[in-house]
Amino acid sequence: MSGALATPLPPNSTIGILGGGQLGRMSALAAAELGYRCHVYAPDADSPGMQVAAARTVADYEDPEALAAFAAAVDVVTFEFENVPARTLEILAPRVPCRPGRKALAVCQDRLQEKAFLERAGVPVAPWRAVHDLAGLEAAMAEIGLPAVLKTTRLGYDGRGQAVLRRPEEAAEAFARLEPRPLILEAFVPFTQEISAVAARGLDGSVAVYDAVENRHSHHILDLSFAPARVPEAVAGQARRHVAEVAAALELVGVLAVEFFLLPDGRLLGNEIAPRPHNSGHWTMDACQAGQFHQHIRAVAGMPLGSAERHSDAVMRNLIGPEGMARLPALLPQPDVSVHLYGKQAARAGRKMGHANCLLPRGSLSAQDEGKLLARL
Amino acid sequence: MSGALATPLPPNSTIGILGGGQLGRMSALAAAELGYRCHVYAPDADSPGMQVAAARTVADYEDPEALAAFAAAVDVVTFEFENVPARTLEILAPRVPCRPGRKALAVCQDRLQEKAFLERAGVPVAPWRAVHDLAGLEAAMAEIGLPAVLKTTRLGYDGRGQAVLRRPEEAAEAFARLEPRPLILEAFVPFTQEISAVAARGLDGSVAVYDAVENRHSHHILDLSFAPARVPEAVAGQARRHVAEVAAALELVGVLAVEFFLLPDGRLLGNEIAPRPHNSGHWTMDACQAGQFHQHIRAVAGMPLGSAERHSDAVMRNLIGPEGMARLPALLPQPDVSVHLYGKQAARAGRKMGHANCLLPRGSLSAQDEGKLLARL
Repeated sequence: MSGALATPLPPNSTIGILGGGQLGRMSALAAAELGYRCHVYAPDADSPGMQVAAARTVADYEDPEALAAFAAAVDVVTFEFENVPARTLEILAPRVPCRPGRKALAVCQDRLQEKAFLERAGVPVAPWRAVHDLAGLEAAMAEIGLPAVLKTTRLGYDGRGQAVLRRPEEAAEAFARLEPRPLILEAFVPFTQEISAVAARGLDGSVAVYDAVENRHSHHILDLSFAPARVPEAVAGQARRHVAEVAAALELVGVLAVEFFLLPDGRLLGNEIAPRPHNSGHWTMDACQAGQFHQHIRAVAGMPLGSAERHSDAVMRNLIGPEGMARLPALLPQPDVSVHLYGKQAARAGRKMGHANCLLPRGSLSAQDEGKLLARL
Repeated sequence: MSGALATPLPPNSTIGILGGGQLGRMSALAAAELGYRCHVYAPDADSPGMQVAAARTVADYEDPEALAAFAAAVDVVTFEFENVPARTLEILAPRVPCRPGRKALAVCQDRLQEKAFLERAGVPVAPWRAVHDLAGLEAAMAEIGLPAVLKTTRLGYDGRGQAVLRRPEEAAEAFARLEPRPLILEAFVPFTQEISAVAARGLDGSVAVYDAVENRHSHHILDLSFAPARVPEAVAGQARRHVAEVAAALELVGVLAVEFFLLPDGRLLGNEIAPRPHNSGHWTMDACQAGQFHQHIRAVAGMPLGSAERHSDAVMRNLIGPEGMARLPALLPQPDVSVHLYGKQAARAGRKMGHANCLLPRGSLSAQDEGKLLARL
């Protein structure tokens, strides 16, 4: 909290966005609607974010001269991803406000810190142990039991950097394969559903939480989000309270998502925090007055937050790789479906090319025939 | 209409936009959401549209070489304004699909053609006469009666290029002042409200019409739109039918608005056609699943149209000049208000800097206390 509280960045100020993928692109589009210019910094020319930015820097994320020039050219910096190298922040942070700040980024880029942080913030998590060597892994397996999941603590996403251990004999091979170390061993959780919730936290400390959603993955990549999650109100409310608490504890300025496992007994276990707009929040772009990207830019620019109210129910389908793009001819003629595409040239397998939001009258999702609904998405 | 019917422009195709103001900017933002690249052509560097475009051409609208290069660089061209010089279209049209096409632009850039066209399309208009010289003006006044409005037939907007004649003695001065000629004399219409409606027409000939709205002007510039118009359903339906008929008669591909005068007896008279997204359609950006800019790009790109259904009622307030921008601190904290700013640097008097959409639950507008509502916009 600072003098910026009462005075948002003036119109036509420049928001620097580190990262040029779809999250940076959609943030830039929201920023433009709110009257800001965007300067996108990324290593690849013609990345999705650069196609819609007023200014571009094509440079490595750790290039000190390019970073210093970027910091001088913008009024605030935000990030498309949490794995911002420490060196990058060392150069940017003294020169220009960075939102979210170091604390949120540091916690979320390290699974060990993240688990410990969730526990401190009052969010239950599955049993876990840090694993520094093979002996430590064996001790952790003995304590936690099998099956369990061995994961890298850094740079993992979409299921990369992890191995499910079902028998003790699998430990050595998995340990040898995964890096960088240390690793983390997490108890395998027999969850019934994966739930997530997105919250925005403003520079003034106010928090706006979207409804919790129910996520389904395919090949470890998010495939579908159902908004709102079809879970008891107590569960949905708990997820929303947790994400608000995490946002406050991280002193976040921006948007964040927390993923949860829902256990058969109704308990929620926190899994991951993403201190940025999140794929499971894309439904908000069409179903809420202020979508997550507008909310993120409002926070980063020091504006008051907008409304996270859901005016419609929604199902979000990711469009992944060539199969996802092949759905377009069937999706475009459906008037209740909004298609969002990211400007990526090659539809490689597993690449997120876009998403589609199907809107339904508020309150009607749980009564839908899910098979019929998904057949047309 | 053409082979393009069944196959929308592929993702990552480039849409050329002639004009770099707020309408081009909002069209470019919608195009990016739909996966297209935009190339903005305008005479001014750093115009609002250019700030969000993947490519830019800064050149005069009649520069033949720049236009030829632009045509070669894009897959389709659309226009932010209807006053496209004939020379510009002569260069572009043979090289690249132009949407809307020559017919719609020609009709809408000339008030004489426009009035005659509205009559042919079955839309009643106020009595009018072409005025080529002062003798003709006197004859026209004798036929139509006074008061009447003398207008240029080309390039008028926001009340410029017109004079209200109340007494015969005012004719000579007004005739001398207004140009280019010919002029048009229109009967002064004692309207009770100004109504408009926006429709999109796709390459396949399908038409989607938004709800008619009620407009209020201040100093001849649109100040407020109320969606939906608080008029009898028969009137609103008539406005929507008229605009759909006009779109079809113009063979429009894109979005168009028709402004109407509502007479005390409930009749509608057509006033103006704008063959493009229109200020009185800005409310659709937040209150409909597919706003007018998305609809425009869908049409121009050969996509099927989206839904023009209104999920919320809305009041749109234009933010004009310094007074408009001075409203921001009061508007931003209201969670049911979405602010759109255009990236213009200088807030000169009368300049459209942005707009704010206040959303209300569907069906609730007519029961609102209008004074209270407007006090917070």
